[in-house]
Amino acid sequence: MSDWQESRIGLVRIFIFRDFSKAIDFVNKVARIAEAEKHHPDILIHSYNQVKLSLFSHNEGQITCKDYAMAEKIDKLIYP
Amino acid sequence: MSDWQESRIGLVRIFIFRDFSKAIDFVNKVARIAEAEKHHPDILIHSYNQVKLSLFSHNEGQITCKDYAMAEKIDKLIYP
Repeated sequence: MSDWQESRIGLVRIFIFRDFSKAIDFVNKVARIAEAEKHHPDILIHSYNQVKLSLFSHNEGQITCKDYAMAEKIDKLIYP
Repeated sequence: MSDWQESRIGLVRIFIFRDFSKAIDFVNKVARIAEAEKHHPDILIHSYNQVKLSLFSHNEGQITCKDYAMAEKIDKLIYP
């Protein structure tokens, strides 16, 4: 989990892609996980090819095991 | 253009949807416009159903007519 940073806004990681299109593909894959888990990260697509994800358990007001579990699933999209 | 705000980070508008899935659908439509125009906004999907778009002409270092033209195209996705 070293590529994810715990912060005030949640468990955060920035992913960098070849281009905007690849970034959008990744966002759609993350969205499918989010819908399946009913747990919705904040997603920032910026600077053409970068995606910043913030995972946070709003009901609990903190980062929980649900966020760590989702981070692992998202990482598997990149390194299956 | 009253729903778009000019700011330091560009021409900004927040769109609110029924749910996360509708927000993602909108982001994909914006992405198709962005690819066609070769002009890529920053896109923040947050709070489950909100999408914040920031349009900026990075080469020129300011908001240009290209950003206003894209804002109009994006608005037509919502109010065709």
